[in-house]
This record gives sequence, C-alpha cells and structure tokens, in this order.
Amino acid sequence: MENGILNHGVDTASTITIKGILSLLMQSIDENGNKRVISLGMGDPSAYSCFHTTHVAEEAVVDAIQSEKFNGYAPTVGLPQTRIAIAEYLSRDLPYKLSADDVFITSGCTQAIDVALAMLACPGANILLPRPGFPIYELCAGFRNLEVRYFDLLPEKGWEVDLNAIEALADQNTVALVVINPGNPCGNVYSYQHLKEIAETANRLRILVIADEVYGHLAFGKNPFVPMGVFGSEVPVLTLGSLSKRWIVPGWRLGWFVTTDPAGMFREPKIIERIKKYFDILGGPATFIQAAVPRILEQTEEFFFKKTIKLLKQASDTCYYKIKKIPCITCPHKPEGSMAVMVKLNLSLLEDICDDIDFCFKLTKEESVIILPGTAVGLKNWLRITFAVDPSFLEEGLRRTQSFCQRHAKQL
Amino acid sequence: MENGILNHGVDTASTITIKGILSLLMQSIDENGNKRVISLGMGDPSAYSCFHTTHVAEEAVVDAIQSEKFNGYAPTVGLPQTRIAIAEYLSRDLPYKLSADDVFITSGCTQAIDVALAMLACPGANILLPRPGFPIYELCAGFRNLEVRYFDLLPEKGWEVDLNAIEALADQNTVALVVINPGNPCGNVYSYQHLKEIAETANRLRILVIADEVYGHLAFGKNPFVPMGVFGSEVPVLTLGSLSKRWIVPGWRLGWFVTTDPAGMFREPKIIERIKKYFDILGGPATFIQAAVPRILEQTEEFFFKKTIKLLKQASDTCYYKIKKIPCITCPHKPEGSMAVMVKLNLSLLEDICDDIDFCFKLTKEESVIILPGTAVGLKNWLRITFAVDPSFLEEGLRRTQSFCQRHAKQL
Repeated sequence: MENGILNHGVDTASTITIKGILSLLMQSIDENGNKRVISLGMGDPSAYSCFHTTHVAEEAVVDAIQSEKFNGYAPTVGLPQTRIAIAEYLSRDLPYKLSADDVFITSGCTQAIDVALAMLACPGANILLPRPGFPIYELCAGFRNLEVRYFDLLPEKGWEVDLNAIEALADQNTVALVVINPGNPCGNVYSYQHLKEIAETANRLRILVIADEVYGHLAFGKNPFVPMGVFGSEVPVLTLGSLSKRWIVPGWRLGWFVTTDPAGMFREPKIIERIKKYFDILGGPATFIQAAVPRILEQTEEFFFKKTIKLLKQASDTCYYKIKKIPCITCPHKPEGSMAVMVKLNLSLLEDICDDIDFCFKLTKEESVIILPGTAVGLKNWLRITFAVDPSFLEEGLRRTQSFCQRHAKQL
Repeated sequence: MENGILNHGVDTASTITIKGILSLLMQSIDENGNKRVISLGMGDPSAYSCFHTTHVAEEAVVDAIQSEKFNGYAPTVGLPQTRIAIAEYLSRDLPYKLSADDVFITSGCTQAIDVALAMLACPGANILLPRPGFPIYELCAGFRNLEVRYFDLLPEKGWEVDLNAIEALADQNTVALVVINPGNPCGNVYSYQHLKEIAETANRLRILVIADEVYGHLAFGKNPFVPMGVFGSEVPVLTLGSLSKRWIVPGWRLGWFVTTDPAGMFREPKIIERIKKYFDILGGPATFIQAAVPRILEQTEEFFFKKTIKLLKQASDTCYYKIKKIPCITCPHKPEGSMAVMVKLNLSLLEDICDDIDFCFKLTKEESVIILPGTAVGLKNWLRITFAVDPSFLEEGLRRTQSFCQRHAKQL
C-alpha cells in the first residue's frame, strides 16, 4: 500500500471536501456488521433529540408559512425586517451599532463564504487561510480564481494564529485573512488579546479580516466568545454567520454576510452596488424562513442556549478524557468551543496503519465509527472528532475507537 | 433632457437587473398621491389571493418541519427522495426516464442559472442569449467570465429564435445557447417543430442547450408546453426549473438543475465530480422544503393547475384587448404562456416621452402604475407587462396606463 489516499480512491487534489470524504467513509461501512453506525464526523447534531432546536424557532417558521404572506420573492439581499433583526442581534456584542444595510441574508454560512471570496477575487489576488481550516474556503477560492496561501494555527498555543507567518505570507496582492472563531476544526476560542493582535496585524498589512463566526457564542471554556467585529474600527471585518449551529438548524440555510466596518469602507456606492448585484444571482434562503428570524432572535430563551452549552461542555469533556486513555491519540488543547476537536495520531504506536485516511477507513470498516481524517482539513495524520453527538453515542464511539487502537497497537 | 436613463439615475451598464429597476421605480412613487400602487412589473403573483398556492404544498412543508426530521444538512446536491421525485416528475413528459443522479436541487431557478453558467465558463468561452431575455443570465455570465452574444427573438414570428443569427454568432468557443420556454419576457410558447429546429441547429454547431423552463406547463394558447429535453437525444440539454411559478411559491427557493441527456455526455465522472464540487459551495434550499417536494409533486390536484391556467389565460386576454385600445402601444403577439408579454411603444405618437424608461418613470409618478421598461430585458422602447395579477388590479392598471397615454398623446 503506497498511499492510503490512492488506495481508498480519495481525491488528493486540493479540493477535497468534508462531505465528500465522509460520504466515501459511509460507503465503506460493513453492511453485514451488526454494530450501529456512529458518526463523529460532521458538525450537525440535529438528528439527536438532546440537540433539538427550540420550539420557538419551529413555531416561528410554521407561523410564517401559515400566514400566507411570505410565499413571494424577498429582495435578493434579504427581507428588511430580517436585516434589521440580525443587525440588532450582532450589535449587542459590539461597541457600535450595525445598520440593516450592513447585513445581507445568505443561504447558510456556505453562501456567505462564497460572497466574501467572490467579492474579493480579482486577477492576481490572494487570500490567507488557516491550516487546519474549513475546506469550503479553498474549494470556493478555486472556483472564484483566488490564490490561497496557508498560515498555521499553533496547537501548542491553543491553536492561535501564527502571526509571523501572516506577515511573511502577505504581499501587495493579499486581500484578506480568514479567522474561524470559535474554531472549526480545532475547538479553540480566541482571547480578546489574540483577536486584537490579529486585527493589528491585518491593519498593518492593509488587508481585511473575514471572521467566520458560524459557531458564534458556542464557547464553554475560559475565554468568552468575542466577535471580531469588536475590532472593526481597527480593520474592516466581513462577519459570516448563521442560525445553523447556535440554533441547531443547519438544514434551514439561514446565514448572513455582514460588513462590520464602522469606518464605512464598504459603504462606498460602487462596492455596495457590486455586492447587491452579486446577490441578484444567488438563490438566497426561503422568504418565510427569513420572516421568522426576528421572532427567533427575540424570543429564544436563554435556557435553550445554556442547555446547549452545557451539553457541548459535557461532551467535550467526555471526548477529552476518553481520548487521554488512548495512547496513540493525543489532544494538544482541550476544546473550549464549537463542536469539534483536532487530535494527533501517533502512527509509530500503530502496527498496520499508514496514515490518517487509512486509520479512518479501517475504523469505519471494523467498528462502524466515522471520524474525519485530518487531511480533509489540512493536517495529515491528525483527526477531527465531532463531539456534538448524543452522549451515549459519543461514549460508545470513543470506546470502539479505543479498542480499535488497542487491536492495531504495535507490540513493544 | 438628454437621456431618460441618465436623468432617472438608472445604470446603463450591461448589468441592469429587473429588481434593481423596479425598486428605482418604486422609490419614485408619489407618496402624496392617493392612488393605490399597481405593479405590473414582476412575475410574482403570490401576493394576490386568487393566485394563492395549493394547501397541499403548504401542508407538506409544515408537516416536514413539524416532523423534526429535517433540521439537519441535506447532501449538497439535494435529498435523495427529492431528486427521485423531480426525476419522475420531469420524466412524465419525456420519451425516456431521467434518474435521480441527473437532478441537482438548487435555491430557486436563479441558482440553477448560476450553476449552468459557472460549469460552462472557461477562458475564451461564449454563450448565446436571447434578446429580449432574462437579465440574470448576463449578470451571471459577467461574474463567471463568460462572454455573451445575443440572438434576436422575432416578434413577427411569435418570438421564435432567429436561427440564422445563431449560425452566424456561434464559433468554436460557443458553449451553449439559452432557450426560455414558455417565454419570459415575451409570453410565447414554442411549437414542437421550432424546438426541434433549435435542437438540430445546436447539434450541428456542437453546442449545448440550456432550457430555462421555470414557466414550464404555464401554457394556455395553441401550442402545448413541450420540454426541450424531448430532444435530449439530439443535443445535450441542461433543464432549469423550479416550483416557483407553477406552484406560485417563488419565495420558497426550490429549483432544479437537470442534465437531460440520454446520451450520457454529462455522466462522465470528471463532469459529475465538478458539478458536485460546485454544489458544495452553494447554500442550496432548506432541507425541510426539499423533504416536502415528493408530496407536493404527487398530491397537487389537477384542479389547482387548471385554475391557474384559466386565471392566466383570462388575464392575458384582458391585457391583450385593453392594450389594443391604446394607440401608442402595440402587442405583436398575443401571449400564450408564462406571466408576461412584450409590447412596443410608438414614441412618435407621444409628446414628451423620450424613451421606455422615461415612459415608465412618468407613468409611475403620475399614475402609481409600475411597468418594466423593455431596456431592462434588452429591447429599448418596448415594455414588459406582467399580467399575472389580480384581475381588478390589472384592469385598473391598464386603464390608468391608457389615460396616461391619452394625456401625453401628440396633438395631431
């Protein structure tokens, strides 16, 4: 076996996607096995009843459709009341007020990523992406002809951005750097101080910050969630977010692209015009879901958020301590936010596993447990484990992973 | 007044959009006037109770959300059951069966247009678009770096495609031609024979056909609706469609991009792979709306479709005969489908109107009636009138247009 990637038919090209690789793993499940399939692969816990969304949200959507007022087109940038509500929601955590004009409604955070990259793409331009990161950025940059350069996140420093790498990578064609906080795939939450340093670096280099806050507010460690927009006066920030994670409704496809920029750089008529025209060719989310957003943002009880945070904290603790018992897997940084954590595979302790992809395919085949190989997020021989699953599934999934590792351990 | 466009602040650039110009018209409404605003501008009759969607559709969506099974991600290409249902729905009118793999679910037909154009764009490529047409194609081609060339639709031949123009425009870099049938903005429905000739021409030129059938089945004249896919063996067809128009739910954003290609040209693994990857960066429609589609397609009663067709036929008749009474407006072809018709403005009969845009802005200001200037769809000094509105609104809107024209008529 020369290479686990080739042998399992996974595309080694830069355009690997999480869903693509998870679907290949699913296909390799042993159908004659009698173990229930446990996926620790995707950031979507909505299938588990403990992670069910709040009734307020579902009611708001049902009422919107039953009102029979929202079957028609919305403005392509979004319904005015939805833009106002999101501006107010995000302004709660900022030292200034966003206006409805700063907010553009997207079909999930995925479409917000595309808007950001498509708007910044121009001949010769490049963008700085974190490694490990979220592969949709790279895929999207490829389709929009934007060159990608990677800076490392440092595991030994709580997955902080390697600011020296940023300085070294950026040139006059660099348009932006991407910060994902709370972190996917690492489960880190950046301190106010670190975010400030990122903003100062970007300011010095005259590049924008794309702040991917799809996991916004899902923080349960020592650092509270601080939106990058707090530093919007230092550096223009494009804030990307959605209802998907905090409300556990990723399938509703309700996201936002927000110019978090009190200095008003994005308010130049030509830029606004270009953004608006781009929205004219996007599909956008359903009007009645947009119409439900003001009520969802106003009426979701604090209790629902607290319950989710508590569940995620417990799950991440379970994950962390169970992994500690597996010699060939190391977790360099206890997760403090989001729904996933990056752990390192020590191949020298394993007998017949050649890399992370080989590990994941064999684990799937033998144990019906799906874990994302780190290669999918830019770190070979690491794994991304999603802990946002039902506790019993998480425990069983990690128990099976442990026995898999024991079975494949090198005899010393 | 040198130019109506400049004076009213409308962008003359090629990226004019229907929504953009309609919104400028809305802003010029006389707020002190006491006339109710009547818009004959946009193909979205969902606000009128007579054009309300069927209860089956609303129930299916409400049930899908209340089932609590569809809050999570769908595969980016769409839920399998939705793809199957749409393949079956479209296959009813084809001489062969589509498979679920041919169907990709999009966020409305708009996103399907983007998929088609983005997939065909490559350096130097060009695409042939109808004039008059739907401006999203041009806007989208601009963002995806695809050169646009126009062929005329011939009003005196029922807005048929000028096939000689196609032959003259196409070269080795031409990738496709676009056919919108039933026609927007012209209200025409092509005969089987004409569609066959288009397919034969495309075959001879070795280019694809993009068949925009967003108004599919909304035909009420002598020609029945024939999907372009009927000629899929002659030429590979990309069929674009949605629930928007036939079910009168444009705000639900549920569309499809379908490879209608029994010869299997699109089934080449590299092409499929590229399409799938493109879907990974799109937002796509909400999972629970997708989940409702099989029931919507199965259970919508024929009565609902017939009622809509009857309403549209009556409205188009009203529109046609009312316009006949206005000397400065001529309708070269009685509408037979879709929701709109193109009519020609005879400026020589008007005193102080310099062009179609000037006409529409003055009409809005004086009569609170909104009509789309033909310039927005590629034909200067024409108008696109949407007749899919409540009958009383349509009659009053045309009556006010008539008195506007009388008031501005040249004294002979």
